[in-house]
Amino acid sequence: MKRFIDLATLQRDEVLDLLALAQRLQDKPEPAALAGRILGLLFFDPSLRTLSSMQAGMARLGGQSVVISPGQGTWRLEWRDGAVMNGNAAEHVREGIPVLASYCDALGIRAFADGSNLAEDLSETRFMSMAELCEKPLINLESAMNHPCQALADWRTLDQLQVAPPARFVLSWVHHPRALPLAVPAATLTMAAQRGMEVVVLRPEGYALPEPLMAKARRLAEVSGGSVSETDDRAAAMAGAQVLYAKEWGSPLHYGDAEAEAALRARHSNWMVTEDWFAGARSDCHFMHCLPVRRNVAVADAVLDGARSVVRQEAHNRMVVQMAILHRLLARRTL
Amino acid sequence: MKRFIDLATLQRDEVLDLLALAQRLQDKPEPAALAGRILGLLFFDPSLRTLSSMQAGMARLGGQSVVISPGQGTWRLEWRDGAVMNGNAAEHVREGIPVLASYCDALGIRAFADGSNLAEDLSETRFMSMAELCEKPLINLESAMNHPCQALADWRTLDQLQVAPPARFVLSWVHHPRALPLAVPAATLTMAAQRGMEVVVLRPEGYALPEPLMAKARRLAEVSGGSVSETDDRAAAMAGAQVLYAKEWGSPLHYGDAEAEAALRARHSNWMVTEDWFAGARSDCHFMHCLPVRRNVAVADAVLDGARSVVRQEAHNRMVVQMAILHRLLARRTL
Amino acid sequence: MKRFIDLATLQRDEVLDLLALAQRLQDKPEPAALAGRILGLLFFDPSLRTLSSMQAGMARLGGQSVVISPGQGTWRLEWRDGAVMNGNAAEHVREGIPVLASYCDALGIRAFADGSNLAEDLSETRFMSMAELCEKPLINLESAMNHPCQALADWRTLDQLQVAPPARFVLSWVHHPRALPLAVPAATLTMAAQRGMEVVVLRPEGYALPEPLMAKARRLAEVSGGSVSETDDRAAAMAGAQVLYAKEWGSPLHYGDAEAEAALRARHSNWMVTEDWFAGARSDCHFMHCLPVRRNVAVADAVLDGARSVVRQEAHNRMVVQMAILHRLLARRTL
Repeated sequence: MKRFIDLATLQRDEVLDLLALAQRLQDKPEPAALAGRILGLLFFDPSLRTLSSMQAGMARLGGQSVVISPGQGTWRLEWRDGAVMNGNAAEHVREGIPVLASYCDALGIRAFADGSNLAEDLSETRFMSMAELCEKPLINLESAMNHPCQALADWRTLDQLQVAPPARFVLSWVHHPRALPLAVPAATLTMAAQRGMEVVVLRPEGYALPEPLMAKARRLAEVSGGSVSETDDRAAAMAGAQVLYAKEWGSPLHYGDAEAEAALRARHSNWMVTEDWFAGARSDCHFMHCLPVRRNVAVADAVLDGARSVVRQEAHNRMVVQMAILHRLLARRTL
Repeated sequence: MKRFIDLATLQRDEVLDLLALAQRLQDKPEPAALAGRILGLLFFDPSLRTLSSMQAGMARLGGQSVVISPGQGTWRLEWRDGAVMNGNAAEHVREGIPVLASYCDALGIRAFADGSNLAEDLSETRFMSMAELCEKPLINLESAMNHPCQALADWRTLDQLQVAPPARFVLSWVHHPRALPLAVPAATLTMAAQRGMEVVVLRPEGYALPEPLMAKARRLAEVSGGSVSETDDRAAAMAGAQVLYAKEWGSPLHYGDAEAEAALRARHSNWMVTEDWFAGARSDCHFMHCLPVRRNVAVADAVLDGARSVVRQEAHNRMVVQMAILHRLLARRTL
Repeated sequence: MKRFIDLATLQRDEVLDLLALAQRLQDKPEPAALAGRILGLLFFDPSLRTLSSMQAGMARLGGQSVVISPGQGTWRLEWRDGAVMNGNAAEHVREGIPVLASYCDALGIRAFADGSNLAEDLSETRFMSMAELCEKPLINLESAMNHPCQALADWRTLDQLQVAPPARFVLSWVHHPRALPLAVPAATLTMAAQRGMEVVVLRPEGYALPEPLMAKARRLAEVSGGSVSETDDRAAAMAGAQVLYAKEWGSPLHYGDAEAEAALRARHSNWMVTEDWFAGARSDCHFMHCLPVRRNVAVADAVLDGARSVVRQEAHNRMVVQMAILHRLLARRTL
């Protein structure tokens, strides 16, 4: 494995191998496996879990990390080809990324969606233009339409919870004060399909996920034996559900039009997860969320603090699976 | 020891043990004592000494640190229970702290006083609500009313200076352009009382420290054989003083009312330490300050640059005593 | 070697020794040479290469770094002697630097020119006032008029390219949206003269480098057998050139007067390097730039992406030579 950019590009066996390695590193720590190795972490956008779990995971394997946050102690970076750079950005990724990569043994990059052009973001134009510039092993720390570290951590969490396919997995839109990117819903949808679940996307009108993402999920479900459907009928979706995975995202109908999107979103402020959402679900239905979560806006305190919630376990698994990714990318190379 | 939150909760023997360990680690370095251990540092407020000395101390023992600063590369964190999170904070400490703690072997948290409700800050409502969320060893890096790392470093400095109880220790208010928190005066007052000194709090009218802090100091002095008094008479306070410890703080009378506080403070801009403050003191009277200090506003250049000043020694001792704290919290645990 | 502040203060043999050590550490890595050592990095100004290459280089030698950025998580620092500190700065370098140095084994400091008084900046008043406060080994990470790490990296790049003195080395002014400091042109000019090149400074009227810098370069050229001249005639400068080193800088004629400087600079927006600049140069003429560079403002895409460009190699060499500097400063000392 040279790059970890999209979980969907891995065969089932490769995913299971990574998860087995993650468990092995928990059972038998390898505190010197990455001694002398350096991980560069390039954060165009904020983070708590990714920032701390990548550094902690790297340290637990004996390596060190270097964090670079453009605009915060570092120059702002332009990424568009051919740009006439007379604005805020003092440096172009065409210089910044190869240079940073040349100091490190692997790079992780977080770059949220540009948010103005849906087709461009669905094509991962920005992330892939940066990925092409990196000759070292590369990890996607969240791009426009993907968050493979989160997806792999959630897969591990589902394994630990013994949620066996084909269990009903409901990915539900929930309310948020701002239109958030599609990266986590996209990664969750495709992970659940790839894992062979009965995936139901529950969302109000106007919040259907873009068709290319749904099509990708259906293709993965065909291979895995799972299924993918969508609805705005909460009771129907939750009937017999074994997992409710809540996530906030902006309407693809008004992509790049904040005002129109906000007007539509305001009509759905009642989409906050409360205990009564689980009325028709299996009694042991789990509640998942990738975090950060806005309490009492997206999800009620009682759900997050209740027995259904596994959000902390998901977050802890971020470090656990990332250690496997780092190990796989770096441990067998020579310095 | 599982937590280092308030020096006053330690018995005298425990304090002396920590100080002896600090000295031992200076005499016989243990560069691998914390190999593989990870310290999470959560800074809600700015820092120079704490930020750098915790990282350097951890590194000198073989460990690594991860720094998280909410609002600077990381989401802003809400801490109030039951908050409806539709404001600036994207995440709640109820998720953020357990998650960060789960990646690390110990956590340090800096969270200054909220500054609006004195009773709440005296109760350490905010810090303790976060401490309850952390199952790992925890270090207070400055809370609303405490700064135990500074207090322990100052104790060591006094030992090195051979200031033997019951020496007269004057804690004096000094001027500052803004109303600063009560954490350091509170920690210094109680440390000096716990160490058995003759503690005199010197401050202008309106700047008396809150009674709960004074009462706590008196209780500690009773055990140690020291004493605690307060005055606004500089000559009386300084007569025979062996230490002058200067500190800026806001008036508890106008807690949370910046305008009224500023009006009162403006009347005391002459409370800047100059050499003539020491006229009635012992000739070898030392000058202490926790830093940062505003030169020629709180303290004159001549004092800070003169022979009395031990401010750099105090600051260096921050790292020395923190290495003992980290060693005590982490060295004997299994990974 | 106790300090690395100005390459020009080193004898030729000392420079060659450092470069040989840099190569040796590439050929035979010493991953434990600086085990247990801590490098403090004090950044008053932004950075990408310096920030990441210092940390990565330190890690590759087994050490760790602590990064402090005043105003970003750390107090703003005052540096002027005698200042009455009632403004934004909460701490003075007279405390901040000795304290930080006391936690670390070496310090690196980046502090750009103050930019208001040319004579003061030429004297390195700010940097040297801070250097005096540091008793530990010290590295200049870019001061008002110097950038010795960049200069040493460029020397190595020229060696690798087999650019043998006396080759013609053209240092050319190029356009930029803002007036940039003189540090890199000053360091490049003197490095090239010290290396024995035929140095030609090419710049429009009003952008001549200050006479003290030119005089310093001429003195170095006398020792090395090189030469130094200046012109605004591009064709004459580039005739037979083996290296074009492009750099942006503000007019010394309008130092500290942004408006007048901008008016002058606007007349030279056509000073952007394009392939036709190389018409009269040697066919293998190399293109150098220290980065960051504004594409299609200072230098055209075609040049940066073309075969002449060695900007990434220069940047990678930053880490390589800095590892030699760190090794020389720290490896033979006892802890």
